[in-house]
Amino acid sequence: MTKQRIFLFDTTLRDGQQTPGVDFSLEDKIAIAALLDDFGIDYVEGGYPGANPTDTAFFSEKRTTRSAFVAFGMTKRAGVSTSNDPGLAALIASASDAVCFVAKSWDYHVRVALGCTNDENLESIRASIAVAVAAGKEAMLDCEHFFDGYKANPDYALACARAAHEAGARWVVLCDTNGGTQPAEISRIVESVIAAGIPGDRLGIHAHDDTGQAVANSLAAIEAGVRQVQGTLNGIGERCGNANLVSIIPTLMLKEAYASRFETGLSADALADISRLSHAFDELLNRAPDQQAPYVGASAFATKAGIHASALLKEPQTYEHVPPEAVGNARRVMVSDQGGKANFIAELKRRGIAVAKDDPRLDTLIALVKEREASGYAYEGADASFDLLARRTLGRVPDFFTVDSFRCMVERRFDANGQLKTVSEAIVRVTVDGETKLSVAEGHGPVNALDIALRKDLGIFQNEIADMELVDYKVRILNGGTEAITRVLIESHDGAGARWWTVGVSDNIIDASFQALMDSIVYKLIKNRESAGLAAAQ
Amino acid sequence: MTKQRIFLFDTTLRDGQQTPGVDFSLEDKIAIAALLDDFGIDYVEGGYPGANPTDTAFFSEKRTTRSAFVAFGMTKRAGVSTSNDPGLAALIASASDAVCFVAKSWDYHVRVALGCTNDENLESIRASIAVAVAAGKEAMLDCEHFFDGYKANPDYALACARAAHEAGARWVVLCDTNGGTQPAEISRIVESVIAAGIPGDRLGIHAHDDTGQAVANSLAAIEAGVRQVQGTLNGIGERCGNANLVSIIPTLMLKEAYASRFETGLSADALADISRLSHAFDELLNRAPDQQAPYVGASAFATKAGIHASALLKEPQTYEHVPPEAVGNARRVMVSDQGGKANFIAELKRRGIAVAKDDPRLDTLIALVKEREASGYAYEGADASFDLLARRTLGRVPDFFTVDSFRCMVERRFDANGQLKTVSEAIVRVTVDGETKLSVAEGHGPVNALDIALRKDLGIFQNEIADMELVDYKVRILNGGTEAITRVLIESHDGAGARWWTVGVSDNIIDASFQALMDSIVYKLIKNRESAGLAAAQ
Repeated sequence: MTKQRIFLFDTTLRDGQQTPGVDFSLEDKIAIAALLDDFGIDYVEGGYPGANPTDTAFFSEKRTTRSAFVAFGMTKRAGVSTSNDPGLAALIASASDAVCFVAKSWDYHVRVALGCTNDENLESIRASIAVAVAAGKEAMLDCEHFFDGYKANPDYALACARAAHEAGARWVVLCDTNGGTQPAEISRIVESVIAAGIPGDRLGIHAHDDTGQAVANSLAAIEAGVRQVQGTLNGIGERCGNANLVSIIPTLMLKEAYASRFETGLSADALADISRLSHAFDELLNRAPDQQAPYVGASAFATKAGIHASALLKEPQTYEHVPPEAVGNARRVMVSDQGGKANFIAELKRRGIAVAKDDPRLDTLIALVKEREASGYAYEGADASFDLLARRTLGRVPDFFTVDSFRCMVERRFDANGQLKTVSEAIVRVTVDGETKLSVAEGHGPVNALDIALRKDLGIFQNEIADMELVDYKVRILNGGTEAITRVLIESHDGAGARWWTVGVSDNIIDASFQALMDSIVYKLIKNRESAGLAAAQ
Repeated sequence: MTKQRIFLFDTTLRDGQQTPGVDFSLEDKIAIAALLDDFGIDYVEGGYPGANPTDTAFFSEKRTTRSAFVAFGMTKRAGVSTSNDPGLAALIASASDAVCFVAKSWDYHVRVALGCTNDENLESIRASIAVAVAAGKEAMLDCEHFFDGYKANPDYALACARAAHEAGARWVVLCDTNGGTQPAEISRIVESVIAAGIPGDRLGIHAHDDTGQAVANSLAAIEAGVRQVQGTLNGIGERCGNANLVSIIPTLMLKEAYASRFETGLSADALADISRLSHAFDELLNRAPDQQAPYVGASAFATKAGIHASALLKEPQTYEHVPPEAVGNARRVMVSDQGGKANFIAELKRRGIAVAKDDPRLDTLIALVKEREASGYAYEGADASFDLLARRTLGRVPDFFTVDSFRCMVERRFDANGQLKTVSEAIVRVTVDGETKLSVAEGHGPVNALDIALRKDLGIFQNEIADMELVDYKVRILNGGTEAITRVLIESHDGAGARWWTVGVSDNIIDASFQALMDSIVYKLIKNRESAGLAAAQ
């Protein structure tokens, strides 16, 4: 039996932008589009060109290579022609492959919110879809409030869907805008729409999580016949969020009930990258990943000591609903586990660090990582710091230089012209190759000043670090209040295009930053030696 | 038509205890049982008496008045008589109203994990249920791995359920222990069990959230005929958590598809207390409530979008799937650069700030918010800073005090004992009521030192701010690299239980922190005046 293709449509950058507390910059949008494009999502909806400067700039060029790049916007206003609607013009002019229009499909909202007639709204749908098609773009329609509208007036809701379909829309997307529809209602209404003549392979589902069932509603719609599913990364979105693609995709690809009948455009290798995708997105949002997230959470395959833990190790597949490695996750048994050691050896090998299984320093390293993670370090997001910790514990990092002391100062006062001015300065005392050097620098804030001062004069190593740069700096407070511990993550890169992440933890943000900055420099020096083919051990 | 009664079974204290990071003390258990009992849950499963000292102590007396108090434990071991099984004896001796036994119902696990025969396992089920019934307790059986077991060997899974039912179990609970079963499979298997002769009003469902569908699976089982639903507060539980009762209960009681056919033991007044219940539980766990939680999250009825926000205010019931007050929540229209004038006026009104629609200062405020949000401020996450900006623009904030200058210093060096030591110090020069004061403080890091120094001596205002405290501090870097801008969000609270959030933005983290700290203090002073019934304007 040939499998039916399910198309994945991501609206993180458009509907996800409605999440309270989320406000994507242009740089955020570019980075997230690249994540989605690399992962292999079929459609990436980028925003609403013309509605705000960020989205307009984002759509000034095409931001994806594999994924279709989708612009979102309203159908033309009633009473103006398509050539006289500036909103429509902005959509068509954008560097998008496809346009997703949104239109009311609940007659009540047509009257109250749009203030036009039902027929005018249908005409706007037809005309807008036709213009997009004529401009050579793939056209689709989000039928807003479709399910509530269908319950109130099925004929009109259907008429909206049919108008788009007949005008040439590739997809007609049925939206549960208020998020309160139940799975059985979704099934029944989708079946009615298909029975009314719009084929399932032209229909999509857009669900919200207001009753905690966005994933179930999306899957119910697929079972009932739709072939496009809309959602967001980690389920971000307005109110309670949108359908979580990071949950839906593994279920579609791994659960027999779906995998036997459907296929996505993703390979098994892509699926194994989904945990990384999910965590990378949280990193971009600077928020802690949900440890209990289905499939990708750190706890998703974790078992506490108890009835299950020992049996789990005997026969994991009877205790795990899918193999954790299929989604790039890992089993975690929160007692002294046998699996841990093998994972470490594999990870070290991947980094070119060979160690024997019975080397006692390996046990020291495992204990050290556990202890440090318990105190706030996060090595999963700081590969270079993990690398250094491993090499140090195994005795393979030379003392390139030592920082004897440093001092940072931030002063805010009125300058000679009566303007408030803030000055940040750092002084570092460092010993390199037997020679002591004092460096001073000003910066934007104390960490920037410290970074500049640290890298100002490292003597014999100075040439080597000239091409490295701090590109991102993230701070998270681990426990609120006076007992707060600060975790700093720093991303660095160099002229060779390498990127690495380091971590520092302290109750003092400057101290935590200093640890991460030091790790970043030392890692760069190690990396230089490795790539020059020299042994790091001396 | 008489409605079918659905029984609510809470396992927060037993299965919820398996959540990574959760470890209830005896006092926690007593407090949580009281929350559940007051709320009106039918069954409160308290733990596993005999398995650990906390649970044994917890079951030394009855901890509920309205709810049935349930002890959990294994069926008797194979090969011993019920009178010779100390585990069973502890269950029967506990001060519980009911006993919930757990037994394997997947033949594979009977062989591998228990190492006994299929018949021995059935005999353990029968004998254990009979002993509990004879002791005057309500007896029930959790059929572990029921759905996976049914798929592997339906006859044996059914035989386990039937053994419990025939031995007098009030409830036979079908458990999706591994959490991977899909709603359609749950429906089909529940229907088969009922068809095999165990009536639905003797069946329960116990679902896990490993595919994000625990709520949907629970509701699918109810639709298929079961009449008891197990879950936890806020969905805590092993791996991805258990079914979230805080989502299931409102859906059962408010959604026509269920409310027309089913009833719980809860009144509408009890339902309106569910947001408080959910938040009180998070307080006990000392964790921040999930803002996006269905029904009870702070964002569950929040709107950000300009398109929806103005229409929402006209006719909220067409934009909200249930009325927020039905679950003790509230509507929230958030200010952000996407919102329109109507949003601003509504939000200001909610804050007790009256302004006419045609007041030119309102346009100034809107422009200011847009401009500041474009430069990195995020007012939707910083209500107190928005409040102050509005009052300042509308000319209603007195100059309580001015900070003339400050200086922060962080120094790391070797102390007299040769240990590395980091010291942070801040000096603030402030003018209050015509008097200039110099304050100095040390802290954990420069921001903490600055916070302490700022609030050390505010003269005539000092008494007023004595009860305020900084409880959280978040930092986000908005553009990576050297052009980075830092956004600081600070959460404060005071003795009256109020919480407020302020924001600061600068290329210097200390400057950004200073702005947010200043806003926090000034907001507290304004708030004191408002609650004292004085006009803030002077």
